[in-house]
Amino acid sequence: MNKVILLKKRPVGKPSLSDFEFTSDSIADPMSGHVLLKTLYVSVDPYLRGRMNDSLSYIPPFEIGKPVQSGIIAQVIDSRHPEFRKEDFVSGTLGWKEYQVSDGKGLMKVDLKVSPLSSYLGILGMTGLTAYLGLTEIGIPMAGETLVVSGAAGAVGSVVGQVGKIMGCKVVGITGTDEKVELLKSKFKFDHAINYKTSDDLKKAIYNACPDGVDIYFDNVGGEISDAVLSNINKHARLPVCGAISQYNDTKIPTGPRLQPILLTKSATMRGFIVNDFSAKFPAALKQLIVWLKEGKLTYSETIIYGFDNIPQAFIDLFDGINTGKMIVKV
Amino acid sequence: MNKVILLKKRPVGKPSLSDFEFTSDSIADPMSGHVLLKTLYVSVDPYLRGRMNDSLSYIPPFEIGKPVQSGIIAQVIDSRHPEFRKEDFVSGTLGWKEYQVSDGKGLMKVDLKVSPLSSYLGILGMTGLTAYLGLTEIGIPMAGETLVVSGAAGAVGSVVGQVGKIMGCKVVGITGTDEKVELLKSKFKFDHAINYKTSDDLKKAIYNACPDGVDIYFDNVGGEISDAVLSNINKHARLPVCGAISQYNDTKIPTGPRLQPILLTKSATMRGFIVNDFSAKFPAALKQLIVWLKEGKLTYSETIIYGFDNIPQAFIDLFDGINTGKMIVKV
Repeated sequence: MNKVILLKKRPVGKPSLSDFEFTSDSIADPMSGHVLLKTLYVSVDPYLRGRMNDSLSYIPPFEIGKPVQSGIIAQVIDSRHPEFRKEDFVSGTLGWKEYQVSDGKGLMKVDLKVSPLSSYLGILGMTGLTAYLGLTEIGIPMAGETLVVSGAAGAVGSVVGQVGKIMGCKVVGITGTDEKVELLKSKFKFDHAINYKTSDDLKKAIYNACPDGVDIYFDNVGGEISDAVLSNINKHARLPVCGAISQYNDTKIPTGPRLQPILLTKSATMRGFIVNDFSAKFPAALKQLIVWLKEGKLTYSETIIYGFDNIPQAFIDLFDGINTGKMIVKV
Repeated sequence: MNKVILLKKRPVGKPSLSDFEFTSDSIADPMSGHVLLKTLYVSVDPYLRGRMNDSLSYIPPFEIGKPVQSGIIAQVIDSRHPEFRKEDFVSGTLGWKEYQVSDGKGLMKVDLKVSPLSSYLGILGMTGLTAYLGLTEIGIPMAGETLVVSGAAGAVGSVVGQVGKIMGCKVVGITGTDEKVELLKSKFKFDHAINYKTSDDLKKAIYNACPDGVDIYFDNVGGEISDAVLSNINKHARLPVCGAISQYNDTKIPTGPRLQPILLTKSATMRGFIVNDFSAKFPAALKQLIVWLKEGKLTYSETIIYGFDNIPQAFIDLFDGINTGKMIVKV
């Protein structure tokens, strides 16, 4: 039997298990030029929420009744493709299926000798590239500057903060539990970390943590947390907008203070991006991340959930921030 | 007698004449290294409103009881300064006084043989540079792209649109009267112009005028006009924020739809600026503007108000959009 998880209906607000359908189909034989893959690790990511809406986001929406897709590490168990051999490990955007056939397009071989398989979904995958390229290409960190990161203990945020430190910035993280505050300071070497849920006055807490003002704000969350950071930015601040998890489940258009006046007063740049905007720089970025990993300058956290059937719940739990670092389901 | 206009109190909301004091002092003799200047043309500009607040904007606030300052063209009527001769014309940020002494710092000689004196406050002054540099440095127009300009018939907007046309863009202007709509199309050669005050559905009107979407939005006004443009932007849109005249008189922080989700979905860049961010490029920009003026590729409008005493009212009238092009008071 081949377990499959379909998008049953488009979520309204926060997704629930009833938005997904657990079903099965047969395991196909690969035709010529194809491989049969066995799913090993499944990435669940906040951006998938956007693809569940029937609206144009940065990538086309998922289709109802079709398997949900995300980043997956799989093993080749049968190959009629010249470039892949049986037992190869590959990474790609694949369906939530235990087994699937692929024509090899978009698959990338990954090397267990360089790094553990799951890391190719995180630090050496989409989230690591997002963190590194968003920070370096848009944030343009300079030594001595102050970098604030929201969603700081997440898969992207924890890498952003570490890269900021490597580049000589003072780094302040915003996160949602005291445990994550401790982790940011101890494991990821942030200079300061703020629990926004227990902060009476977040604007003031950021001011206190950043007495020289905020030069770069790497925004993973949007909403009121970002309002509080924006009121502390310096002249010529750079504001990469990587995510807006606080708003992904909104059913109405969220409102807040208008940004144009502060961007104008501060000659500041706010730029949204997805990692594919910088795809030409992936090889160089990966090379740098591997060097830093080997040198011990970079570390990462994963929250691993076990069992194919738990993929949808792991995805839903992202919106409650239960993960630290990259959220991955091991099948 | 030497007429002087002081800032009497900080305006609350829209400025009124009672915020200004009409007074006089004597005409001083210039000391060694100084010049005595006679004011000829006074620029009134929306950004002055920000300097009337007691808050840090991009330049320090005006002081209560001191003359208001703005861009002024003056004639040297007595000189004890080695670089300026009697009868020279100069441009600089000077006080609202009929006569004043200057040490020459920040004064720039202007040449009546190249262009009329008042043009050095507009097309060859701050507003022309703002338009040219904001568009080219942040908007980065490419031939065939669609450029939308708000405040399109203003001193900056009318130049932005013309430079966009020179660079091969399709140009759509948003303005507030039918007369200005006609002027944008006839005199400034915009492809389309929209009167936002008579448009039932501005978002749709922009969609109709820009069927290929908006690649560059040069924003002079902020507020709901900008919301309507933003809902029509293309992937990788560039959004120079030059002004927010719709909000300068607000007494509360204005709110509106949050921008991060659209910037994220569209990988768009919004950047606030003031012209001095690009001061290193002033000489090259002026050279280009003069060439285009001489070639007849660029034209400009001025709204000239006569009489020193009318400076404050001319400034107040900016917020009702009574001007077309640069608003200037001829003393």
